[in-house]
Amino acid sequence: MAKRVTGPEIEKLIQLLAKVPGLGPRSARRAALHLIKKREQLMGPLAQAMGDAHAKVKICSCCGNVDTMDPCTVCTDDRRDQSVIIVVEDVSDLWALERSGAMNVAYHVLGGTLSPLDGVGPDDLNIKGLIDRVAKGGVREIIIAVNATVEGQTTAHYITDHLADLGVKITRLAHGVPVGGELDYLDEGTLSAALRARTLI
Amino acid sequence: MAKRVTGPEIEKLIQLLAKVPGLGPRSARRAALHLIKKREQLMGPLAQAMGDAHAKVKICSCCGNVDTMDPCTVCTDDRRDQSVIIVVEDVSDLWALERSGAMNVAYHVLGGTLSPLDGVGPDDLNIKGLIDRVAKGGVREIIIAVNATVEGQTTAHYITDHLADLGVKITRLAHGVPVGGELDYLDEGTLSAALRARTLI
Repeated sequence: MAKRVTGPEIEKLIQLLAKVPGLGPRSARRAALHLIKKREQLMGPLAQAMGDAHAKVKICSCCGNVDTMDPCTVCTDDRRDQSVIIVVEDVSDLWALERSGAMNVAYHVLGGTLSPLDGVGPDDLNIKGLIDRVAKGGVREIIIAVNATVEGQTTAHYITDHLADLGVKITRLAHGVPVGGELDYLDEGTLSAALRARTLI
Repeated sequence: MAKRVTGPEIEKLIQLLAKVPGLGPRSARRAALHLIKKREQLMGPLAQAMGDAHAKVKICSCCGNVDTMDPCTVCTDDRRDQSVIIVVEDVSDLWALERSGAMNVAYHVLGGTLSPLDGVGPDDLNIKGLIDRVAKGGVREIIIAVNATVEGQTTAHYITDHLADLGVKITRLAHGVPVGGELDYLDEGTLSAALRARTLI
């Protein structure tokens, strides 16, 4: 703002809100004004929730999930089949797969993908933790659910190589046509994969 | 989330973030994960700033601006020409006009527009405060800068009528072609207004 038109506390709030992904400088101002209008119903509780989360958040030392306890809710859930581990790049992928509700198993968050160009090597990811979990025994299947990008596939290969000697079954997500997707909009790679992996009706 | 995969504090944070304008349920999750990743640089300071703002925010009893002091930064700024008052619907309009940097004057925030259908009458807006400010004297011009909507124009008429006897000059924003705008995309009303108000080059 060219000249100051409001208090420094409010300007600070707008500046910080603008750093939240999904909000830019303009929407941060809009968000701040909305918060100020709803200060009892929304701003107070949100400030409190953010402070609480900040004080209590932990990264699970077993799987890399984000939680307020360590080991996390997923790792300590004995109604889950802890002998199957889905390997994902990021916590957001874990949450997305959970929303599908398809499997009730354990997870392992890598924290990214191998990317030599960006200087991300195996030691920068939570790969050793995965190998240790498998080496400890009790794991019968690793489902590799990294993104279908070049980096994701490189990472998948690296993990597969390093788990090969441990006698665990390793699978990956199926490639195919997204449910609800239109063929016309899909790339050739996806269509070829869907044709190759066709199933009997 | 179908099953619980993270702590209740983090779920609460996501729920509340989803109520911030500009964020939906999906982007609230993304924002929460980003905040957790940057918890020292961003989440802590943001929680603090929000708590500070929540504790200190005030609505200026003179002009309706949002600030941490009352009267606000704008009303107490003696480098501004306090004898000219720009009347706006919302605090966001005040901030937008300030960013233009075109005038260094005072403001008055109505807090909305007259809208009989939605049950918003003159007593629900900060109109009486404006009339009192003008009646007190020392004001030489009122610039009505409400939105160019039906409700905005109704509100402008109402205000003009009620200020008519107080001997103050009342103006409104010019209508015309937005700077950088393409004629082809403008509505007929704007083009007619721009033609009627044409100026010598």
